[in-house]
Amino acid sequence: MTASAVSEQVAAEIAASLDRQGALTSLGVRLESLSAGQCTLSLPWSPAVTQQHGYFHGGVIGMLADSAGGYACNSLLMPQRECLTAEYKINIVAPADGETLVAHGRVLKAGKTLVISAIEVFIVKNGEEKLCAIMQQTLFAIDKK
Amino acid sequence: MTASAVSEQVAAEIAASLDRQGALTSLGVRLESLSAGQCTLSLPWSPAVTQQHGYFHGGVIGMLADSAGGYACNSLLMPQRECLTAEYKINIVAPADGETLVAHGRVLKAGKTLVISAIEVFIVKNGEEKLCAIMQQTLFAIDKK
Amino acid sequence: MTASAVSEQVAAEIAASLDRQGALTSLGVRLESLSAGQCTLSLPWSPAVTQQHGYFHGGVIGMLADSAGGYACNSLLMPQRECLTAEYKINIVAPADGETLVAHGRVLKAGKTLVISAIEVFIVKNGEEKLCAIMQQTLFAIDKK
Amino acid sequence: MTASAVSEQVAAEIAASLDRQGALTSLGVRLESLSAGQCTLSLPWSPAVTQQHGYFHGGVIGMLADSAGGYACNSLLMPQRECLTAEYKINIVAPADGETLVAHGRVLKAGKTLVISAIEVFIVKNGEEKLCAIMQQTLFAIDKK
Repeated sequence: MTASAVSEQVAAEIAASLDRQGALTSLGVRLESLSAGQCTLSLPWSPAVTQQHGYFHGGVIGMLADSAGGYACNSLLMPQRECLTAEYKINIVAPADGETLVAHGRVLKAGKTLVISAIEVFIVKNGEEKLCAIMQQTLFAIDKK
Repeated sequence: MTASAVSEQVAAEIAASLDRQGALTSLGVRLESLSAGQCTLSLPWSPAVTQQHGYFHGGVIGMLADSAGGYACNSLLMPQRECLTAEYKINIVAPADGETLVAHGRVLKAGKTLVISAIEVFIVKNGEEKLCAIMQQTLFAIDKK
Repeated sequence: MTASAVSEQVAAEIAASLDRQGALTSLGVRLESLSAGQCTLSLPWSPAVTQQHGYFHGGVIGMLADSAGGYACNSLLMPQRECLTAEYKINIVAPADGETLVAHGRVLKAGKTLVISAIEVFIVKNGEEKLCAIMQQTLFAIDKK
Repeated sequence: MTASAVSEQVAAEIAASLDRQGALTSLGVRLESLSAGQCTLSLPWSPAVTQQHGYFHGGVIGMLADSAGGYACNSLLMPQRECLTAEYKINIVAPADGETLVAHGRVLKAGKTLVISAIEVFIVKNGEEKLCAIMQQTLFAIDKK
């Protein structure tokens, strides 16, 4: 499936929303790509993302995936509406040992109130990508304040 | 159920493990209590924990809950063994609008290889606690390196 | 927490709804108790509930738990509204080897649109109850047709 | 990805295992296809699969999906080993209103002890397939008894 581009307004709103999320900007999360129903975020390694062995923390993996799924959803809802995370479930399938974490979020089903996204997270080490986590997520659409 | 105390060695290992987790220490996560099969962590509000409305980010809530469940498990496994997170599922049930986030992790079932924990997360605002998330988590026990 | 009784109308509607669910009645699911926000269902063993070793099938455990959580929710929504299952997550923590399966559903948070329930499933063998599964569930409230 | 065929022994063991699962055979579950790491099961509508509106019950959808994921896993583990379901999470994305339910299970990651599967469930009505549920599942590999 080829995704269509989002409008300039939506792109600007998502960039602004990302800027307001201290939990993401403080770690250096970057918006890599955005299209209708899809979003890719990346996060470079730093001491602030680590668990006890120096890999990316499972909670950080979850946060990046949750955000990628949320912006994939917002790409369809904005500018009138936006989403809140209702719930997510993540399987960590390999240790996140590498220099960059990349999360690809994709909307599977956009209902009027609930939106379901699937997110794949890859760890990049020496230029090689490896699947490290998968997430299934439910988002709740609300009118923008 | 009254939980028994952990040994001094286990308490010291868990404190040392927490210190090595940059993702937690950089945000100011604190170990509030620890007993056999139970662990409580807290996290004060700061700009580095926020989503776009200034509340605690859903990913940060997930990270704190995941860690509380993991240390509840480690309290039973250490010093010989420790755990890795296999998967977790979290429902955000209220916005995390407040000054401190508190996660109570509790082991529900400790198998030989898999351990199941349940975690409740509360948001504290002006001294009042309110449930903001619940997590169900599967941990994988391994021999310590 | 002591749960309050449901009205006679709600009790009658839930009994009638259960009767219309062929997937439950064909296996012999019974309503054991019902109060505001809580519901207990039971299911006797028969060849029609088994997996390959003769225990209760994981899918049957999921179905009973899903139904107990749904009726716990309906006890609060009916008679004007009712719920649909949006999603659930279940951990099987022990083999369901016994003569009766019992699922206790309880509403943790009743929002206007989304309701979160937690369900514990026990297996009864020779009169002894043992925890065999836990579920976390999201329900979607709709107006009754 | 093209999946390789399974050996005749594995195919025979999976067929025999399916035959021993009363919860599946009593409803009429059929093995549609099987290859290394993949399995498709189908289930025709009958009164015994219904919820209160006459559609396939969410618990039945979960059972079919759980079984498709489990046999996708067993196709890699058998004949020496087999799997137990540790946990699963399912999102119901559309009402299962139709004549046949079809679940496609696929192994995403086969670890030594834990195997992660993803399952998509479609409802077929008047010859048209529609996505009705997605599942993410963790399986535990054991030596065959």
